[in-house]
Amino acid sequence: MAKQHVYFFGDGHAEGNGRMKNLLGGKGANLAEMTSIGLPVPAGFTLTTEVCTEYYANDRNYPAGLTEEVQANLARVEQLMGKKFGDASNPLLVSVRSGARASMPGMMDTVLNLGLNDTTVQGVIAQSGDERFAYDSYRRFIQMYSNVVMGMSGEDLEDILHDMKEKKGVKEDTDLNAADLKQLVSLFKNKVKAELGKEFPDDPKKQLWGAISAVFSSWMNARAITYRRLNNIPAEWGTAVNVQSMVFGNMGDDCATGVAFTRDPSTGENYFYGEYLVNAQGEDVVAGIRTPQPINKAKHKPGDLPAMEDVLPECYAQLAKIRDILEKHYRDMQDIEFTIEKHKLYMLQTRNGKRTAKAAVRIAVDMVKEGLISENEAVLRVAPEQLDQLLHPSLDPAAEKIVVAKGLPASPGAASGAIIFTADEAEAEAKLNRKVILVRVETSPEDIHGMHAAQGILTARGGMTSHAAVVARGMGKCCVAGCGDIKVDYRNETITTVKGDVFKKGEIITLDGSTGEVMRGEVPTVQPELSGEFGELMVWADNIRTMKVRTNADTPNDAQVARDFGAEGIGLCRTEHMFFEGDRIMAVREMILAEDVEGRKKALEKILPMQKGDFLGLFRVMKGLPVTIRLLDPPLHEFLPHTDKEIDALSKDIGVPAATLKAKVEALHEFNPMLGHRGCRLAITYPEIYDMQVQAIMEAACELNKNEGYAIIPEIMIPLVSEVRELAVLRANAIKVADAVIARYGVKVEYLIGTMIELPRAALTADVIAAEAEFFSFGTNDLTQTTYGLSRDDAGKFLPFYVEKDLFPNDPFVAIDQEGVGLLVKMGCEKGRAGRPGIKLGICGEHGGEPSSVIFCHQIGLDYVSCSPFRVPIARLAAAHAVLLEK
Amino acid sequence: MAKQHVYFFGDGHAEGNGRMKNLLGGKGANLAEMTSIGLPVPAGFTLTTEVCTEYYANDRNYPAGLTEEVQANLARVEQLMGKKFGDASNPLLVSVRSGARASMPGMMDTVLNLGLNDTTVQGVIAQSGDERFAYDSYRRFIQMYSNVVMGMSGEDLEDILHDMKEKKGVKEDTDLNAADLKQLVSLFKNKVKAELGKEFPDDPKKQLWGAISAVFSSWMNARAITYRRLNNIPAEWGTAVNVQSMVFGNMGDDCATGVAFTRDPSTGENYFYGEYLVNAQGEDVVAGIRTPQPINKAKHKPGDLPAMEDVLPECYAQLAKIRDILEKHYRDMQDIEFTIEKHKLYMLQTRNGKRTAKAAVRIAVDMVKEGLISENEAVLRVAPEQLDQLLHPSLDPAAEKIVVAKGLPASPGAASGAIIFTADEAEAEAKLNRKVILVRVETSPEDIHGMHAAQGILTARGGMTSHAAVVARGMGKCCVAGCGDIKVDYRNETITTVKGDVFKKGEIITLDGSTGEVMRGEVPTVQPELSGEFGELMVWADNIRTMKVRTNADTPNDAQVARDFGAEGIGLCRTEHMFFEGDRIMAVREMILAEDVEGRKKALEKILPMQKGDFLGLFRVMKGLPVTIRLLDPPLHEFLPHTDKEIDALSKDIGVPAATLKAKVEALHEFNPMLGHRGCRLAITYPEIYDMQVQAIMEAACELNKNEGYAIIPEIMIPLVSEVRELAVLRANAIKVADAVIARYGVKVEYLIGTMIELPRAALTADVIAAEAEFFSFGTNDLTQTTYGLSRDDAGKFLPFYVEKDLFPNDPFVAIDQEGVGLLVKMGCEKGRAGRPGIKLGICGEHGGEPSSVIFCHQIGLDYVSCSPFRVPIARLAAAHAVLLEK
Repeated sequence: MAKQHVYFFGDGHAEGNGRMKNLLGGKGANLAEMTSIGLPVPAGFTLTTEVCTEYYANDRNYPAGLTEEVQANLARVEQLMGKKFGDASNPLLVSVRSGARASMPGMMDTVLNLGLNDTTVQGVIAQSGDERFAYDSYRRFIQMYSNVVMGMSGEDLEDILHDMKEKKGVKEDTDLNAADLKQLVSLFKNKVKAELGKEFPDDPKKQLWGAISAVFSSWMNARAITYRRLNNIPAEWGTAVNVQSMVFGNMGDDCATGVAFTRDPSTGENYFYGEYLVNAQGEDVVAGIRTPQPINKAKHKPGDLPAMEDVLPECYAQLAKIRDILEKHYRDMQDIEFTIEKHKLYMLQTRNGKRTAKAAVRIAVDMVKEGLISENEAVLRVAPEQLDQLLHPSLDPAAEKIVVAKGLPASPGAASGAIIFTADEAEAEAKLNRKVILVRVETSPEDIHGMHAAQGILTARGGMTSHAAVVARGMGKCCVAGCGDIKVDYRNETITTVKGDVFKKGEIITLDGSTGEVMRGEVPTVQPELSGEFGELMVWADNIRTMKVRTNADTPNDAQVARDFGAEGIGLCRTEHMFFEGDRIMAVREMILAEDVEGRKKALEKILPMQKGDFLGLFRVMKGLPVTIRLLDPPLHEFLPHTDKEIDALSKDIGVPAATLKAKVEALHEFNPMLGHRGCRLAITYPEIYDMQVQAIMEAACELNKNEGYAIIPEIMIPLVSEVRELAVLRANAIKVADAVIARYGVKVEYLIGTMIELPRAALTADVIAAEAEFFSFGTNDLTQTTYGLSRDDAGKFLPFYVEKDLFPNDPFVAIDQEGVGLLVKMGCEKGRAGRPGIKLGICGEHGGEPSSVIFCHQIGLDYVSCSPFRVPIARLAAAHAVLLEK
Repeated sequence: MAKQHVYFFGDGHAEGNGRMKNLLGGKGANLAEMTSIGLPVPAGFTLTTEVCTEYYANDRNYPAGLTEEVQANLARVEQLMGKKFGDASNPLLVSVRSGARASMPGMMDTVLNLGLNDTTVQGVIAQSGDERFAYDSYRRFIQMYSNVVMGMSGEDLEDILHDMKEKKGVKEDTDLNAADLKQLVSLFKNKVKAELGKEFPDDPKKQLWGAISAVFSSWMNARAITYRRLNNIPAEWGTAVNVQSMVFGNMGDDCATGVAFTRDPSTGENYFYGEYLVNAQGEDVVAGIRTPQPINKAKHKPGDLPAMEDVLPECYAQLAKIRDILEKHYRDMQDIEFTIEKHKLYMLQTRNGKRTAKAAVRIAVDMVKEGLISENEAVLRVAPEQLDQLLHPSLDPAAEKIVVAKGLPASPGAASGAIIFTADEAEAEAKLNRKVILVRVETSPEDIHGMHAAQGILTARGGMTSHAAVVARGMGKCCVAGCGDIKVDYRNETITTVKGDVFKKGEIITLDGSTGEVMRGEVPTVQPELSGEFGELMVWADNIRTMKVRTNADTPNDAQVARDFGAEGIGLCRTEHMFFEGDRIMAVREMILAEDVEGRKKALEKILPMQKGDFLGLFRVMKGLPVTIRLLDPPLHEFLPHTDKEIDALSKDIGVPAATLKAKVEALHEFNPMLGHRGCRLAITYPEIYDMQVQAIMEAACELNKNEGYAIIPEIMIPLVSEVRELAVLRANAIKVADAVIARYGVKVEYLIGTMIELPRAALTADVIAAEAEFFSFGTNDLTQTTYGLSRDDAGKFLPFYVEKDLFPNDPFVAIDQEGVGLLVKMGCEKGRAGRPGIKLGICGEHGGEPSSVIFCHQIGLDYVSCSPFRVPIARLAAAHAVLLEK
């Protein structure tokens, strides 16, 4: 039997269902599902994603028999709707929409009102009794089709429309009458012919196949490719095409169209949140051209436009019932589209709604309480990466704010940056590490890359469900949308507020996406306060996960933040940061400039009490939790100035001749410092440095044990080991120093000595290294650099290009490269355990806070991950996901 | 039964044999073997190497029962010799000598004439009838024992001897009479007591145990440790101690002592080569104090001292017979020591003789022809590394030479360098990459490190078997020994020749170790001419080996040298060297400074014909053999000047403002160029560079195919791949360019496209990379750098320290690190073959010419190694060894 390429849905029956997303796309599967559960869905059919795949595999040719299948399904629709495609008296009009496996909002093209021509428009007039509506639909169809299918610039026809309005002396499209619109149809068609040299197609079948091909072709347009790259969607998935009977929200005041979320997508509140427009067609609501009205009165404020609950009460009641059905059926918050045609409600779409992290957490927790989902499901409902939104600072409520404008609180969070008006510029500035706010009248899919690059987005137009708002929430970016208080002047690159303030390109503003406020300059921020639901969810996650989560922290302050976020120890305390601090950098330099061991020891004696103080502070904060301290790692030249000017200044400061200083700087110069005289190699040649550090660590631990009764077990970590003998020598030294301190204090303090596995050779020889190490911590930053032979400091010249061109599937410094670097980590674990059963294994590279990497770490059996304080909750949740994904 | 710790030998019977070197050491095993085959060996016994190991394992205590075993064996010696240890009338005297598993010439200590005291000396007088001899032996014993066993400086007693000679008004030790020597004994003993605060031991048993302990202790002295490190001898092997009846070559003119080689150790000629001294004790010959006489007349020249063949003809005849017996028995050239006591010949030692590479080759080939050994054995007899000596240039016979002095041609080859007088300074200078000649009156084991560091060694005293000569030959260093023409003044750091020329420290001289000439300044050198025997041996090796040997060559000249040395193709042609040449560096810079693709292409068009010319030259030389060409690898900044001065000069040259140049240099600056924008990363961002190179390669190949009928198959190699997609993109580009060239020429030329495996990730993902690569070449230089995280350019600050302290077993840039880097290469091979069965695998790092690495490459199944032209024969021989070692 030939493969079925088209699936029908309509009147309570559907060939597909909601589980067939891979084949029918998200939209098609959900239309089938809604049809099956008895919701009012206009009849239609779906061309499968396999058609798309075959289309591209066969040089843009359709599989055999497709035409016949489409024809047969079209006939079923005609029969069910009692209309006929292309009929002069009672014509069927259809929409043609894309629908991929994963939601790609606004990424691909849509054609509405398809089937109209000079003949069928008469049928529409006859059926609707509304000539103006019929010609308005017709001219809209020509605009959409000529742009989307025929590839004409939209501006050409917009200009004609504009001229017509000027000629007529009117402002709005709605002020044009039927005759005007009829004339527009004719003008539009002439323009199409003049521009493209061919007639606008009148044959509805030709129109249909043109639209179907346009949707399939849109799968490979630049916007779609960018979106897929940003969201890791494979091109092989393809898109489906949905052909569906048109219903009209723009046939009069008993018509409407709207979009809604079954719960608030910003806060997660269990409240039916949506917007609608009376007498409007589908895309009008999200396009942001007219300001939409709320669907219900629950949060009505004085001055708000009338709610659908009041305007169309029966329809609203029916919609509210459908909302309940959908939530019970899908067991998740839904994002729906509906149209009311002459008081009859139609459902055009349902899908799991995008939401902010805050909403995701609240909805997941609420749904557990409502008995809709299990705790495990709730944990899986929140993407770990999303938590980042919750954990970043918001505006300091105590800070002085000069609010210059106010818009819609479209996506929460706070952001400051320089005003930039184009997506390309935003991207260019971000590459230079400059923080920018992208300011647009409204955003479109072409702006995606700029939104990604910006700290926040500000639009002058559009509602809470406008493109800018939806996309920003998905990205977790702060967004203020529909800010009518500002006038954006692209040409002069300025914003003018209603109060008359003018901001030029490059000036700094601050957005508060939770209030909609726009502020002058940079406003200070404060730590986020985490909700009760967040706490509940994290407890569930903690109960599920088996891997510990530690933090990378060098100061008591960082350590405290991390503990508050649930860190279970310090996985990496970098001691070099302590060396850079103002009061000790001088002693460090004295050590470096010393000519012999005695000189170095003298300088190190000055550093000792300060280092000890550092560790006392850390140990106190982490009381009872493990603390891994990495001994000095960077090459010594990092502690010296490098320019002549800096050297002269230091020379005056410390009374050492500039020439001497310069000679030392030159002697320490390295061609490849990353691969140079650093880490344990320093300690092999200058053992006194690590001796001092071990002494400081152990004195701090012993003192706390003796005086404050702490049971701290320091984990002393030796970096950059490539060969077990290095570790053997340094471990022996450390034991000697540590045991001497313990003996001196007369206490019983345990300690562990271990190593970073951050060079390929260490991973490859981990079995023998384990003989000298009580723990391993995988330093995947350096391991990635050496495994790829790629300096992170230098990669900026080509790495973005690599990621863009898909040469590297991901930036390997963000998500661990599982095939290469990950394989080494896996070998390191297996060999480490072979060499020392039960050896403690962790990771302290930045990958330790990236969800896919955390899941990988769980899979290969690490005991813990360690990450920056703000990523601790993300790692906790990802570790729980790792367990649940195994099931 | 208790373990046997002592093995007896004497009178045709021995408990040990020649195969027991591990237990008895080389000397002990061979003494046992010689005894067994009926050679005249003074009776004695050997304390095993296990005693040494147990001695160190048990805190310098001997195993139980050792005293009794030694006593019992001593009694057997006494019985056999008819003498008694410590007897007043017919005392047994013994030597105590070390003897490790591997020969360590002069490394450890020896004591002779042991058993003498005021009582036994009377017995010696009675037996020998020579009071002077008896007291001379006695005073020598005290000198040796007090120094070696009691740890007194040798100078203390030398001073007393010197004073005595002055007082007596004589010059030589031999001018002192019995009374003088008797008085010396007494003065010596007093001095020992004064210096050490204890009596010189009179009890022969105490003397014996003191000496045994001193030998065991000498195993751990600094000289021995250094020697072991240089020769990769494990400390665990331990040394044996040989206690043997003394025989005396110094009891009169019917006595003699000598050393000989059964064939010439310099040339390999089948000629009995040796030196002897009449009326002398063992160490006199090698110490170089008296100039020794030749043992036979075969190469006698007018003015030579009388030969043993004439002086002691029966003894010589007996010795010559023993030579034949030994060669037939051991099937190898022997290095022997003998003593004649009153016309009776005694054999004191035999061992496989050290030899020059030239001698090794000739002896091996001759012995095959003589039916003594098989071809396979002959191939194994020559250490691949040794060939280096043969392959290095010698002095250009046409060059002008100012010969300032002449000594003995002690070790062949030629060397130039600055005069240095101490081993420490030689080592220090060598670390700074300066070439030095170590000049000494004579060398001692303390000078080993300096000899190692020097290019060549010049001594004023000592013969062809002196310390300097033996050690230099072993090291393959050029050496001129016994150069009486020069006076060495350590204090003023000068050499004065007999002609009155004065050379100061630091002045350059040249040595010719094959003629013994010393020349002023640096004399040019020429390629070595290889002997017929060398050719024969290499043919045998080639028949045995299964791995191909290619060469790394960038120029037709290098390629020709390598072909002459037997290279079977080019494994690595680095194209960047071509970019640096005078006539094209300007075009390269123009390309780098270009602002856009068009500008770059214009510059590349200028380079194209030159590159094509390079390849035409190479292909012509390598006609019919494979040529692997690596596309451009270094970062672009390497082609630009870096100092302000250089930039200004270039600015004037090319008319580009210095500021522009400087900005470009800064823009291209990298923190870690080794891990930066180079290799295939350049071609990903600037594809036009590789396009030009591929075009040049293919045009050259097609032109030769069309016009000269060559069947060249270029192997195009893409460097620094870390991810298969890089290779996929660049391979597709290269195929496009190559196929276009082929089509244009209308010929049929095949080509391969492959990659370097030089980053850990490439090795780890070799299975997927193989899908895009027709061959792999392991670039183990960079692979070592990244696997260790070690920049070769920067490692100089600590790598020597690492090797010295044994933290790295070897310099991993010299011999491949089999555990780490080697494991990656092995994985790369296995995965590569899994991804593409039959993929061609080779290595082009410098390890490709290092014997242990070549053997490793064979073991993991590489198809070929590629190395510098001069190392091609070494690799060929090592590849044959690899096969033979498997058996």
